[in-house]
Amino acid sequence: MNMKSLIVDLDERSYPIHIGPGLLGKPNLLRQYIPGRTALVVTNTTVGPLYRARLDEALEGLRHATVTLPDGEAYKNMQTLGVILDALMENRFDRNTTVIALGGGVVGDIAGFAAACYQRGVHFIQIPTTLLAQVDSSVGGKTGVNHPGGKNMIGAFHQPRCVIADTDTLNTLPDRELSAGLAEVIKYGLIRERAFLDWIETHMSSLRARDPDTLATAIETSCRIKADIVGKDERESGLRALLNLGHTFGHAIENAMGYGEWLHGEAVGAGLCMAAGFSQRLGWLNETDVARVNRLVAAAGLPTHAPAGLDAEGFLQRMGIDKKVQDGKLRLVLMKALGESVLTDDFPLQRLHEFLHDYPRA
Amino acid sequence: MNMKSLIVDLDERSYPIHIGPGLLGKPNLLRQYIPGRTALVVTNTTVGPLYRARLDEALEGLRHATVTLPDGEAYKNMQTLGVILDALMENRFDRNTTVIALGGGVVGDIAGFAAACYQRGVHFIQIPTTLLAQVDSSVGGKTGVNHPGGKNMIGAFHQPRCVIADTDTLNTLPDRELSAGLAEVIKYGLIRERAFLDWIETHMSSLRARDPDTLATAIETSCRIKADIVGKDERESGLRALLNLGHTFGHAIENAMGYGEWLHGEAVGAGLCMAAGFSQRLGWLNETDVARVNRLVAAAGLPTHAPAGLDAEGFLQRMGIDKKVQDGKLRLVLMKALGESVLTDDFPLQRLHEFLHDYPRA
Repeated sequence: MNMKSLIVDLDERSYPIHIGPGLLGKPNLLRQYIPGRTALVVTNTTVGPLYRARLDEALEGLRHATVTLPDGEAYKNMQTLGVILDALMENRFDRNTTVIALGGGVVGDIAGFAAACYQRGVHFIQIPTTLLAQVDSSVGGKTGVNHPGGKNMIGAFHQPRCVIADTDTLNTLPDRELSAGLAEVIKYGLIRERAFLDWIETHMSSLRARDPDTLATAIETSCRIKADIVGKDERESGLRALLNLGHTFGHAIENAMGYGEWLHGEAVGAGLCMAAGFSQRLGWLNETDVARVNRLVAAAGLPTHAPAGLDAEGFLQRMGIDKKVQDGKLRLVLMKALGESVLTDDFPLQRLHEFLHDYPRA
Repeated sequence: MNMKSLIVDLDERSYPIHIGPGLLGKPNLLRQYIPGRTALVVTNTTVGPLYRARLDEALEGLRHATVTLPDGEAYKNMQTLGVILDALMENRFDRNTTVIALGGGVVGDIAGFAAACYQRGVHFIQIPTTLLAQVDSSVGGKTGVNHPGGKNMIGAFHQPRCVIADTDTLNTLPDRELSAGLAEVIKYGLIRERAFLDWIETHMSSLRARDPDTLATAIETSCRIKADIVGKDERESGLRALLNLGHTFGHAIENAMGYGEWLHGEAVGAGLCMAAGFSQRLGWLNETDVARVNRLVAAAGLPTHAPAGLDAEGFLQRMGIDKKVQDGKLRLVLMKALGESVLTDDFPLQRLHEFLHDYPRA
């Protein structure tokens, strides 16, 4: 199988995404994107031992160092950001240095934010090693950390110079994390590409069996849809908000359970089902549509229900401090049809409250 | 005297600077730049008590809160940034909120960085209350905090929606801080406007006597020069680096003395004299030029010497971790002539070492 490449078109901040097997074994692919003579690799205790040696080889001849973070969303905070910034300072890396994120979404988000802040912005390269990061976190330039009061509340937009998605790294991914990544893949179909949704339904068993060609096609199509949306709306004024389908419900779940109890993708999976359910409540989807969403999410190995113990008030409160709130009005991404999502505040909050009250819990 | 206004031209991020007396007493001037219904005022314990009430009046009808920081460069760090971010979270301000900096350069830099990071960027307004901030820190979109290992090492570019420079606030400024602001005014003349340099020499006694018309002209001209440079080079690839004239020497002094011992403007004043002296050593300025720079800096009430106890090695080490280092080469802004500065690494480090060794100490 050959390498697939696509370009995220952002004028002078455009960058390529390369997808395929064995890419970590091709040092020249990486090296062409490093303009200076220094680099800091940011990875974690799970991914580092598996792939760091290959990366060290690719960086031979550069002055470089590695920061290995503890694994998990719990460490995506200002303290960990400080650890990376300290390492950049201690190594006296200048503003022409490159920060390389080797890991999943957490590593990418926090390393990207460090690259955005250090000396007001240094070069950044993403090497995502989870399906979730390959189809989502590594595309679009969003970086940041969590605040105790809310997810991703502190951060920056900072585009990478390139993204290298080596599909071989998915072979070591736990089943549960593969499923979590599939939540975002399903999301892209639901946002605005019915044909991709049909394709996902047909290929779900191959995806879960990690057939490399099928995975690569899913990654490429997801990245293409996201790149197209981000290219048209880099700063999330409107169109880009559609990428939050399922995420406002999902963030409330993650926030209530403490980050890490449910995986992000699991919360998004349930969130997609909730967005479908509330869209039905507003008369936009029919029962068959909603059943289809639930069936697909379940087939991906993801929860379709909300967590027990998170009541309607708890949901609303946690959705209320979400970034999607504009001057007290709650805006949600909902579905007018499968493959046709919209950002809307055109619903009574009371209807949302009733829906959250009625929605099935675990 | 009427209000003077100029526009910093940065395409869709362009913003106005309004300069004049009594501007804090004109609520409509401020309100037109606040798009949402919430605002966070960031000020400090010195400036807050003097002007906060006037600002509260101007914000009537908006949901707003105030964070009052301790006064001083020592608090320009990640911990203080956290205090502002916590306040934004606690008030549940959404991404349409506006952060208003009321104070000097430290308040502006840290409040601007909080505005840049919070939800990946919210609106920002600068109300600088020191001469230094009015002519320098508030123009150009640089925000950030210090790291224990270096000044302004962590930050972002984030443009304000407007800058309101009320010259009345300079009436309460200590003499020493007025002088510190004049260091940057002199810098603008030395960078590339010989006629302005002549004007400053002629008007130095009026400036130090705080004649309001003279001050307003100095602020407007300084802002115009800086706005012109920043407008042509927002991200400091080349031209903008000229604004660092005197600053690489100055940062080394501040770093060695501990931030706060010398005021930033005092270190820049000495730094300007050192830049002139080293330019003479390279054969670019003559003795008369250097004497003129020293006389002007002294007339502003600023030091022309380096601090005792900071030897040549100490200087070099502290200049070596400066942001202006590119892959191990030290680049400095020096003067080809008065009013004609250049960014250059075209000198032997040994010559710099000798110069630093010979330079007068206090």
